[in-house]
Amino acid sequence: MTATSTAATARTTPQMNYVRNAWYVAAWSSDVGDTPFAAKVMGEPLALWRKDDGALVVFEDRCPHRLAPLSMGRCEGARLRCMYHGLVFDETGKCVEIPGQDMIPPAAKARAYPAVERHQWCWVWMGDPAKADESLIPNVWPLDPDQGWLLGTGILDYQSEARLICDNLIDLSHLSYVHPATFGTTESWATHSPKITALPRGVRYELWLEDQPNMVGGGGGQVDPWTTYDMLVPGIFLLRNTIYPVGTAKACNYEAPGEDVKPLFDAYTCQAATPTGDRTARYFYSWGPHSSVGNEEVRDHLMVMARQAFAEDQAMIEGQQRVLDATEDPRVIPTAADRPVVMYNQLLAKLVREEKSGGTESGEAAA
Amino acid sequence: MTATSTAATARTTPQMNYVRNAWYVAAWSSDVGDTPFAAKVMGEPLALWRKDDGALVVFEDRCPHRLAPLSMGRCEGARLRCMYHGLVFDETGKCVEIPGQDMIPPAAKARAYPAVERHQWCWVWMGDPAKADESLIPNVWPLDPDQGWLLGTGILDYQSEARLICDNLIDLSHLSYVHPATFGTTESWATHSPKITALPRGVRYELWLEDQPNMVGGGGGQVDPWTTYDMLVPGIFLLRNTIYPVGTAKACNYEAPGEDVKPLFDAYTCQAATPTGDRTARYFYSWGPHSSVGNEEVRDHLMVMARQAFAEDQAMIEGQQRVLDATEDPRVIPTAADRPVVMYNQLLAKLVREEKSGGTESGEAAA
Amino acid sequence: MTATSTAATARTTPQMNYVRNAWYVAAWSSDVGDTPFAAKVMGEPLALWRKDDGALVVFEDRCPHRLAPLSMGRCEGARLRCMYHGLVFDETGKCVEIPGQDMIPPAAKARAYPAVERHQWCWVWMGDPAKADESLIPNVWPLDPDQGWLLGTGILDYQSEARLICDNLIDLSHLSYVHPATFGTTESWATHSPKITALPRGVRYELWLEDQPNMVGGGGGQVDPWTTYDMLVPGIFLLRNTIYPVGTAKACNYEAPGEDVKPLFDAYTCQAATPTGDRTARYFYSWGPHSSVGNEEVRDHLMVMARQAFAEDQAMIEGQQRVLDATEDPRVIPTAADRPVVMYNQLLAKLVREEKSGGTESGEAAA
Repeated sequence: MTATSTAATARTTPQMNYVRNAWYVAAWSSDVGDTPFAAKVMGEPLALWRKDDGALVVFEDRCPHRLAPLSMGRCEGARLRCMYHGLVFDETGKCVEIPGQDMIPPAAKARAYPAVERHQWCWVWMGDPAKADESLIPNVWPLDPDQGWLLGTGILDYQSEARLICDNLIDLSHLSYVHPATFGTTESWATHSPKITALPRGVRYELWLEDQPNMVGGGGGQVDPWTTYDMLVPGIFLLRNTIYPVGTAKACNYEAPGEDVKPLFDAYTCQAATPTGDRTARYFYSWGPHSSVGNEEVRDHLMVMARQAFAEDQAMIEGQQRVLDATEDPRVIPTAADRPVVMYNQLLAKLVREEKSGGTESGEAAA
Repeated sequence: MTATSTAATARTTPQMNYVRNAWYVAAWSSDVGDTPFAAKVMGEPLALWRKDDGALVVFEDRCPHRLAPLSMGRCEGARLRCMYHGLVFDETGKCVEIPGQDMIPPAAKARAYPAVERHQWCWVWMGDPAKADESLIPNVWPLDPDQGWLLGTGILDYQSEARLICDNLIDLSHLSYVHPATFGTTESWATHSPKITALPRGVRYELWLEDQPNMVGGGGGQVDPWTTYDMLVPGIFLLRNTIYPVGTAKACNYEAPGEDVKPLFDAYTCQAATPTGDRTARYFYSWGPHSSVGNEEVRDHLMVMARQAFAEDQAMIEGQQRVLDATEDPRVIPTAADRPVVMYNQLLAKLVREEKSGGTESGEAAA
Repeated sequence: MTATSTAATARTTPQMNYVRNAWYVAAWSSDVGDTPFAAKVMGEPLALWRKDDGALVVFEDRCPHRLAPLSMGRCEGARLRCMYHGLVFDETGKCVEIPGQDMIPPAAKARAYPAVERHQWCWVWMGDPAKADESLIPNVWPLDPDQGWLLGTGILDYQSEARLICDNLIDLSHLSYVHPATFGTTESWATHSPKITALPRGVRYELWLEDQPNMVGGGGGQVDPWTTYDMLVPGIFLLRNTIYPVGTAKACNYEAPGEDVKPLFDAYTCQAATPTGDRTARYFYSWGPHSSVGNEEVRDHLMVMARQAFAEDQAMIEGQQRVLDATEDPRVIPTAADRPVVMYNQLLAKLVREEKSGGTESGEAAA
């Protein structure tokens, strides 16, 4: 066989506008067991597998022999065997065995991606391997089991660009209109201005609301919720929602509450929106209470609520994608509530530009 | 039809060849209730909704903010609220509220289409709004409840261009081959020549057949059916089928029967074939007897028959579309029975040409 | 967000690289009964039908009138009637009747393909009809009922190029890795070198293995299997698997066993991989024992095994196709086991080149 196949061409690849030199979440740790796991990031098919010592390896999902999927292969100790014609690869992707012949051509190599398993997520570096810097992995500490958070987890596959999911997460004014039935969110989320701060690789949001219905925290009644999130490159979202008695916001002078202020409830959600292909994304989510204010039952109750709410988001975002696809020259009209969306997208655009021009990758979101 | 179709390669967007300055049927009146209704015409996504006074409004299905579908919005009196981030639009499409900010940019406008609700159909003008002329709405009077016709209604979504549906309706010779089992149609429909007349915006068909099996009218036996239809731009089809005792055709000298000639049966069908997208169409149909010769039971019996027959048409037409898509340079060979098809398509082509050149839109089908 | 969306356009058409001047299997004989049968070869829709004398006729599936599918037509003696508007065609594709008119335009002709029914398969010549040479039909003699083989048959529709199926069949090293559970195949299939011989229109494979588990032949134990196949243009595969007592390979001096050497078991499989469209193929298969060593029960047992094994192949090959489609400039790295694959594909490429340059079509695979 000579080169006969090409993908659907002249197809726009919007994910090309994503930053490559970044760590993307490709799977939950629990997704990768004794057999390889097939995933996709930025249109590239990946095979995630573990050596017998448990270490994560990420290959392109493509045997160099005849391009069979390595995710259909078999783990053999510290090696992976392609189960089409039996070639064996070590953890660097080097072919170490071809059945029926002694000579192994140097080109017989599977591409291995820099990969790290941390915070229950399998991270893969999609850019220049020489630039893979583990310090750039976002610190998703609440996912670590020893941090006291009881988080339920899940996955949703989206028929939309990942960036639309990020836009949704960043602009919490949508809570007032998309989730009033599931989260009991009032219009306050849309009419009150949060404090927005630029981070080196993201944006931070902080908001006090007062005298709101208490939906998530149990116990009902009215509360002052304090909400803060960090949205971090390339699409990692860490949101903490802490609930206090009415009056706390004012007592705190609308500043961030100190550790000494005792909350009624405290919940964390860690999420990742990974571009998988042309207008597709995988959304990794988690949610749950701190063990000091909730237990597994509370966590499961929140997950039921989350699945309903995230289905509302998905319907809206995939609808938005369909409209975008039917629009010749789509343009948006930013609003005041969009400020952090604009900031985050400008940061991303800057990183992409720098990456393409070979410049430094530093950069802080312009406030 | 001249050569209008090309194959799947370099896939054409045939709906661009439809006339824009025309009223298209976007929905049945009953489709649009308290919540917006999503429809598509010529590839453009539409949101149809009602003000609290019941008046129909048609927007593009696209919020100018971040392009969420307005069909997922909420009717609020005479206004529509986008339920993604809460922007509110009045009936002209002007944004009148943005939650969390006072200034409303003039560009925050949803496109509103000229729209009219008439004869139980929601009509939308797809061309220059300044040219929207309600007198061009085809007079589909039998759909009006006070006209004495008992019409059942339905919708079929086609995986084909709308024009193939029109071609099918215009050339009734297909009745002999597609529907002999459902309608009991003999070869006479293919071998007898109708009288064809050019209309300012369509073609008229008139045909007497003699001594035919009586399938639709109940009672069985042999009859003389008189059939006439008007096919009107941009795809509106009104067909009346009136059944008389054998001998009536000859007694009428094969001219149109007068009002004084008492029929055994009398039925009307009003149909619309609306291009919804690239090779997709929505087909709106109705059929039923006049109340002087039938009741609801007769209507329901006709609708059972119609659904079987329309499924036969759909299988053939979608098959035809697949063949067209697999044909590099598709050309047709017109036959005698095709004369009204050619006339109607030439009229449409003329209107499209005039529209593109900015000329007048008048024009009569050349016989 | 800026303009990022366009539809999928201009898809590559790899089937154009298949040889046209060849006989392709379009159907099993039993597929074509009293009504036309729709098939596809190399993207061309076909209507296969029988005259009242049983003779096979193959038309393009396209009425010249308005391009309705002739496979929805009706057989009328030695003629076929299009059941959209009633045109009738004789076996040469000439239109002999147009309802409602006397004159028949000469252009009203359906394309008729050279077609031959032989060895239970319906063969169609996709190239220049003047070059259609029945002597080029591969001699698939074991399919003939009077040859003593009891073959079960089946069809699989592939979401892949036909050539990937051929590559799979030619390189039997895959037996060791894809089918160990179903066929009990050891690694010997990958580590032992077959004798490969170039044929005028294909390649021949011959291999003795020794002391292998006996899975297909019944009786269990260890055996020496002798395997030989011919892979013939344009994708016809005849494989014979004969099983002997351990020691036979050596006794035969590893040469082809003579007719005097009595086998324990003897099975034939005849297969065809026909390109149906862009990345789709229809796979015709058969398998079964010779009546001297097996009966219908044995045949049915083999077919159960075959369906499991062919599902394993299909999963791998369609996975391979998906990887190819996701690869910008796909290249393979041939191995020793690939030698007959390379030979066969070079032969095919040579035939395609000669066909395009108008040269002779002779040519033998270079060893």
